Amino acid sequence: MRILKIIVLHGPNLNLLGTREPEVYGKLKLKEINSALKKRGEDLEVVVDCYQSNHEGTLIDRIQDAAKDCHGILINPAALTHYSYALRDALSASDLPLVEVHLSNVFAREPFRHNSVISPVADGIICGLGLDSYLLGLEALVNIVKNR
Amino acid sequence: MRILKIIVLHGPNLNLLGTREPEVYGKLKLKEINSALKKRGEDLEVVVDCYQSNHEGTLIDRIQDAAKDCHGILINPAALTHYSYALRDALSASDLPLVEVHLSNVFAREPFRHNSVISPVADGIICGLGLDSYLLGLEALVNIVKNR
Amino acid sequence: MRILKIIVLHGPNLNLLGTREPEVYGKLKLKEINSALKKRGEDLEVVVDCYQSNHEGTLIDRIQDAAKDCHGILINPAALTHYSYALRDALSASDLPLVEVHLSNVFAREPFRHNSVISPVADGIICGLGLDSYLLGLEALVNIVKNR
Amino acid sequence: MRILKIIVLHGPNLNLLGTREPEVYGKLKLKEINSALKKRGEDLEVVVDCYQSNHEGTLIDRIQDAAKDCHGILINPAALTHYSYALRDALSASDLPLVEVHLSNVFAREPFRHNSVISPVADGIICGLGLDSYLLGLEALVNIVKNR
Amino acid sequence: MRILKIIVLHGPNLNLLGTREPEVYGKLKLKEINSALKKRGEDLEVVVDCYQSNHEGTLIDRIQDAAKDCHGILINPAALTHYSYALRDALSASDLPLVEVHLSNVFAREPFRHNSVISPVADGIICGLGLDSYLLGLEALVNIVKNR
Amino acid sequence: MRILKIIVLHGPNLNLLGTREPEVYGKLKLKEINSALKKRGEDLEVVVDCYQSNHEGTLIDRIQDAAKDCHGILINPAALTHYSYALRDALSASDLPLVEVHLSNVFAREPFRHNSVISPVADGIICGLGLDSYLLGLEALVNIVKNR
Amino acid sequence: MRILKIIVLHGPNLNLLGTREPEVYGKLKLKEINSALKKRGEDLEVVVDCYQSNHEGTLIDRIQDAAKDCHGILINPAALTHYSYALRDALSASDLPLVEVHLSNVFAREPFRHNSVISPVADGIICGLGLDSYLLGLEALVNIVKNR
Amino acid sequence: MRILKIIVLHGPNLNLLGTREPEVYGKLKLKEINSALKKRGEDLEVVVDCYQSNHEGTLIDRIQDAAKDCHGILINPAALTHYSYALRDALSASDLPLVEVHLSNVFAREPFRHNSVISPVADGIICGLGLDSYLLGLEALVNIVKNR
Amino acid sequence: MRILKIIVLHGPNLNLLGTREPEVYGKLKLKEINSALKKRGEDLEVVVDCYQSNHEGTLIDRIQDAAKDCHGILINPAALTHYSYALRDALSASDLPLVEVHLSNVFAREPFRHNSVISPVADGIICGLGLDSYLLGLEALVNIVKNR
Amino acid sequence: MRILKIIVLHGPNLNLLGTREPEVYGKLKLKEINSALKKRGEDLEVVVDCYQSNHEGTLIDRIQDAAKDCHGILINPAALTHYSYALRDALSASDLPLVEVHLSNVFAREPFRHNSVISPVADGIICGLGLDSYLLGLEALVNIVKNR
Amino acid sequence: MRILKIIVLHGPNLNLLGTREPEVYGKLKLKEINSALKKRGEDLEVVVDCYQSNHEGTLIDRIQDAAKDCHGILINPAALTHYSYALRDALSASDLPLVEVHLSNVFAREPFRHNSVISPVADGIICGLGLDSYLLGLEALVNIVKNR
Amino acid sequence: MRILKIIVLHGPNLNLLGTREPEVYGKLKLKEINSALKKRGEDLEVVVDCYQSNHEGTLIDRIQDAAKDCHGILINPAALTHYSYALRDALSASDLPLVEVHLSNVFAREPFRHNSVISPVADGIICGLGLDSYLLGLEALVNIVKNR
Repeated sequence: MRILKIIVLHGPNLNLLGTREPEVYGKLKLKEINSALKKRGEDLEVVVDCYQSNHEGTLIDRIQDAAKDCHGILINPAALTHYSYALRDALSASDLPLVEVHLSNVFAREPFRHNSVISPVADGIICGLGLDSYLLGLEALVNIVKNR
Repeated sequence: MRILKIIVLHGPNLNLLGTREPEVYGKLKLKEINSALKKRGEDLEVVVDCYQSNHEGTLIDRIQDAAKDCHGILINPAALTHYSYALRDALSASDLPLVEVHLSNVFAREPFRHNSVISPVADGIICGLGLDSYLLGLEALVNIVKNR
Repeated sequence: MRILKIIVLHGPNLNLLGTREPEVYGKLKLKEINSALKKRGEDLEVVVDCYQSNHEGTLIDRIQDAAKDCHGILINPAALTHYSYALRDALSASDLPLVEVHLSNVFAREPFRHNSVISPVADGIICGLGLDSYLLGLEALVNIVKNR
Repeated sequence: MRILKIIVLHGPNLNLLGTREPEVYGKLKLKEINSALKKRGEDLEVVVDCYQSNHEGTLIDRIQDAAKDCHGILINPAALTHYSYALRDALSASDLPLVEVHLSNVFAREPFRHNSVISPVADGIICGLGLDSYLLGLEALVNIVKNR
Repeated sequence: MRILKIIVLHGPNLNLLGTREPEVYGKLKLKEINSALKKRGEDLEVVVDCYQSNHEGTLIDRIQDAAKDCHGILINPAALTHYSYALRDALSASDLPLVEVHLSNVFAREPFRHNSVISPVADGIICGLGLDSYLLGLEALVNIVKNR
Repeated sequence: MRILKIIVLHGPNLNLLGTREPEVYGKLKLKEINSALKKRGEDLEVVVDCYQSNHEGTLIDRIQDAAKDCHGILINPAALTHYSYALRDALSASDLPLVEVHLSNVFAREPFRHNSVISPVADGIICGLGLDSYLLGLEALVNIVKNR
Repeated sequence: MRILKIIVLHGPNLNLLGTREPEVYGKLKLKEINSALKKRGEDLEVVVDCYQSNHEGTLIDRIQDAAKDCHGILINPAALTHYSYALRDALSASDLPLVEVHLSNVFAREPFRHNSVISPVADGIICGLGLDSYLLGLEALVNIVKNR
Repeated sequence: MRILKIIVLHGPNLNLLGTREPEVYGKLKLKEINSALKKRGEDLEVVVDCYQSNHEGTLIDRIQDAAKDCHGILINPAALTHYSYALRDALSASDLPLVEVHLSNVFAREPFRHNSVISPVADGIICGLGLDSYLLGLEALVNIVKNR
Repeated sequence: MRILKIIVLHGPNLNLLGTREPEVYGKLKLKEINSALKKRGEDLEVVVDCYQSNHEGTLIDRIQDAAKDCHGILINPAALTHYSYALRDALSASDLPLVEVHLSNVFAREPFRHNSVISPVADGIICGLGLDSYLLGLEALVNIVKNR
Repeated sequence: MRILKIIVLHGPNLNLLGTREPEVYGKLKLKEINSALKKRGEDLEVVVDCYQSNHEGTLIDRIQDAAKDCHGILINPAALTHYSYALRDALSASDLPLVEVHLSNVFAREPFRHNSVISPVADGIICGLGLDSYLLGLEALVNIVKNR
Repeated sequence: MRILKIIVLHGPNLNLLGTREPEVYGKLKLKEINSALKKRGEDLEVVVDCYQSNHEGTLIDRIQDAAKDCHGILINPAALTHYSYALRDALSASDLPLVEVHLSNVFAREPFRHNSVISPVADGIICGLGLDSYLLGLEALVNIVKNR
Repeated sequence: MRILKIIVLHGPNLNLLGTREPEVYGKLKLKEINSALKKRGEDLEVVVDCYQSNHEGTLIDRIQDAAKDCHGILINPAALTHYSYALRDALSASDLPLVEVHLSNVFAREPFRHNSVISPVADGIICGLGLDSYLLGLEALVNIVKNR
């Protein structure tokens, strides 16, 4: 049986989760999110690999690597959501199933957060559901991978 | 133990699901979606009530009723997403947890489908995941209701 | 002596007045507004007929009927204010004196509430004055009808 | 020989034709238009069924029904032309030949009337020709149906 | 018993009322409007003080003075409505109840008259009702002052 | 009996009809369209004169001549539709009944084709109906001329 | 014989002409322009009265006075050109023939100088011709006054 | 003594002056304008050459010729004003003094007539003054030529 | 040794500082700001002259005077910042070093406060630093004056 | 062996190259460019035919002819670049390989020059390289033709 | 006594200061700016730490570190000012006093430099004052830190 | 004889060339492009150095280094084209001849790809010509360097 591998990418400043602005992003720390994702991954029988970077270029390198040995990408692009066409091109070129997630409801925040340059190349988008954005996003991604 | 009740609302033309434009919306019929939602509701120990209408006013009436005896709203507003401020006001006035779902990735379709007048008053938004948009939306909604 | 008849129309969700979001719309219930309008109508020696609907089409039907036996329209189009060109055409076709009212100051709220597609075909517009928006609107409307 | 059936749909306020604003819409009453259409239908050997409603939802219901037993739609969406994406989706989902007509030249009127959300899913558009907009629209529609 | 004092401010060119462009602004002269306001003030048991100026700066000076001894401001900012952020700041800083009035329906005139930089800081807005815009505005303002 | 004369004008590149991009414009050649128009003209008892040019100036000259001896203009301005204010002024100055036609549904093509600078001075517009756009346009134009 | 009187109004900062930024406005001083205008006025047999102010309100007062005893207005509104709707309303209310002039070609300068809120209510506009803008403007204005 | 030569260019449809839409353009025929210009030219001791064309290309050819033997250009670009960047480039390349004139006040007409692509390369612009727009424009142009 | 003189200009409503809306503008009164500026001026060995007006025209007059005997301008244009092109032209014509200051961070307030028509002609801009905006602005201005 | 023929088209005013505005367009004359192109054509073993016109219609005629006997088009549309949808349609209809060239870097000039209506139908675009824009464009075009 | 520490961040290309484009940025080298800042820091009794990077991600890392042991941030984001929402989020999350500085007056340069995505989360902004932008910015920042 | 050195920079994701989305970017691998460039460099007698990075900051570092020992830059900025003002500033500061190239015709793709923030500081731009975009770009760049 083929073992499915999912890469979870967290964009800039998400390493600060739980320690800063909890009224917007909740109290969960990034490593708690990663643990929850790995645990859910076990339930879904997929390997979950998590990675965070503040560097657009490093995230792109990581996506290019993922294209070689992963079966799907779950990404919270954070602020890069709104302008990084380079990230978009990397995701699009990977040709992997892609789910974009956001912890908060970006459509209820500042106008610049309403626009995502990533969404047009994603399969699905989930936002506003806190940890559930990630967990349900993982579940959906695995379904897409399996049904492809 | 309190029994939680969730109302699922389907907007205009969603009664046609599975019979028309399957390349956009998939092959699932609306009643199959409703069955899947009810079944998932049983797993989550909530009552799921489903309703479809082509009439904006009827949907608003139904939301006002829901405000009296339901604990959360899961809605796919279909084309009303893009202009029905009356639907938005009804949802906002209901003061119920709200998850907005779309079968297809609206951000990868025509520009007019990129804007939702509903999203700013929703708790979370899920799109592009087909049946999973609904099922995961229900799961997230129940979590919000329980944690409120 | 001719008896003047005024129709008062309330748009979607206004049946909820006084029970929801009182910080925006005040504590008055719709039937209290209607009573106050009827009482003021008696003072002004006009018959006041009040009607609320969540259905754009039903409001249009009602306006077409009003064109047959009423002498003026006082309308709070609620959220339909911002997009219902069909309501506008019905009001314009009725050829009756028209006063548009809003309980809250729409210009101090979300940007989408700054634009009214109804205002260009109204004789006068009153907003932000709570119950007074209705009562003064009725008074002004009766003056217009009498001076026509 | 197959009998072709055409549904003619008139949007909000068109029931007032001939009685209101004749300087814009002409003096013809709606039932005169319908009679003329039925008569022209006889010449073209098609059955013509006419229907008017002020309710967006009712028009959508009617279009969904038409998809089952009609061979083409002739529609004057009136004010819904400018914002009803729900009507558009219904027409598009019907997969029937579609001709959109307007009595007046909408491009010579207020700017909001220059934009049609229906036109991109229509086969042809005719405007500004009064009764001829309907009659020639019927003729063209029948030709499309026959040549399909 | 506290005596309430209301200041009525008329913006640029309103001293010409009744003598110029009566088809737009009516035949009433400014001093007739002022008399009517004072008389209505007597009925409402408030002192009404009226002031007109063509000078933005003088109006601002007058508003700053009003902040010291008046209880409410009724203003027709005339053309300053559309660009005088300085007037807006003065009105906002006065922290007095504020009703903005216009004789004509500004929304049915040139596009530049549709935008008011004053409305967002007003309690209520009345337009299109001729003398009634002022008289009803006074009545509403007094109600706001009394209920504060 | 007065003999009516109609001038049919074809704009730039329409001489290529039937030979290039048939998936957009159909397989009919321009001379076939002209023949069909002349034949239909005979049925309608009017003289039909057809003219094509790639030169905006030449079309304007021709319109000015038409103003002297024709009774109506049927025009497919092709790409000039979108920017030739000079053509518009010529058509408007001719003071002749004017019907604008397009073979394809311009509203379903590139955004720049949605805007016509000619439409505001036309009596009627027909698009998307292929040869029928011309034939029905001729019929409508003759009706306008006769009823003027 | 009636003696015609023309008022020439110069807006803010024009008192600095000839002393500042001569590369933009030329070397002529304002009093030289006024002398030239008075001399040309003598040739045209009209009385020319010149007035400059940095105060919008003072210019409006002066226009209102002019409406009583002058027969035409020649104005260089300077920077007020671009935002003073109050000046526009004063000029429009005066109902006097109006010619707007600018020394420099405002269309070849900063974008904000391309828009004039005054032009729509002027009879004619002249710009870019230095002193000639004023002198030819006076000549044209006198012709309009005489032919009225 | 050098003999100055001025070329006067009239754009599309101006050959119709005096015969069409006199309420907009006045009753003067083009040849009367030309005669008046030539006569004024004699007074100013310059040769005036007049030319009209409906063809953008022909006007450009004529401007290129003028660059060889003329000393200034007076142009009424008519509808080409609003889009002909080719005309603009020709005028700019000629490096001749340039005055742009319009018979009517284009800023008081349709919005598309408010924008001129020619003005940024003109020395001066005159509009709204009827025949005077041309005559005063000629006078100003001659002054510029002489002072160069 | 030349004695340097700096003029400090405060725009409309700044005379209210410290008494109104302290949560936005701080508790300092204008005369305290002026005292602090004069004291800092002594440290910097320049004469500081302070002036406030609610009148755009008066501020322009004052700038024109300053151009005669001052060496630099420190200005807080208040609401005039956003539309007074007349003020801009006066400042630009003065040809004096110019520093624009704001007490609050205008970029974190309403969108209309993000645009300054003054900034393009200033040497430097300081905002959001309360009294320090003025004091540091003075220091910077003196440095510019001395290094010119 | 098939002999390839390339048509080079130069738009309005390019006949003036080398004689006017050399600071923008360089000192090369058009016939020198044509010679260089023919010479390079010889090296590439293709026949190069050059043509310039100030007339949009004439260029379209020439393109239609080229479609019959040429294998590729190299065009510098000059000012027509920015608005001639007719030229675009002609080029698109020709179905020939197309390279668009500009002598100067249009993106570093006026904003209106940043937009090309031609580029979306070109195979490649080269700008800013002076004569090289043409020579390299020819080279690229021949490569495209040969590899088709 | 607590020792205050300020981090000074310089964005992309600022390491080139003094060696490139001195007409825009002045002749000072970055290390001279840093020395001046450290010296001024000594006067103000704060430790000043300076850091430059061309990498957005590295700057974000550095800001996250600063949040642990610094008391204020002085930043010149250079070109990142205009698009780096990731930098903005990092600065905002740090919850440290923030002053944004620019050497040149960005509002007098290209339009894209007028917009800062950083300013809405800064306490104060200083621009156009060369070295003084930094030195005064440091002074202001220290005052904010001390008064917090 | 001076040896010229050219640096060729490839932006994010271009290392994937030939392996992903060949329908858009062609089948050539990046190292094949580099080989072709080096070979053409030999023909042109220049040294060609090639470098790719997914990191904006690394590309900027590389440009700053190039400014020290290279004579020209050939860059394909890939997705950074559309937002990296930091890259633009680095290129502009280098003061080296610059040619921007794109493999595909960006003007025929998504709208966000039509805008380049790099083009205004480039000498020339080539797009849509596949490998030829690079090779001809190199040729043009060498010509610019040699003629400088």
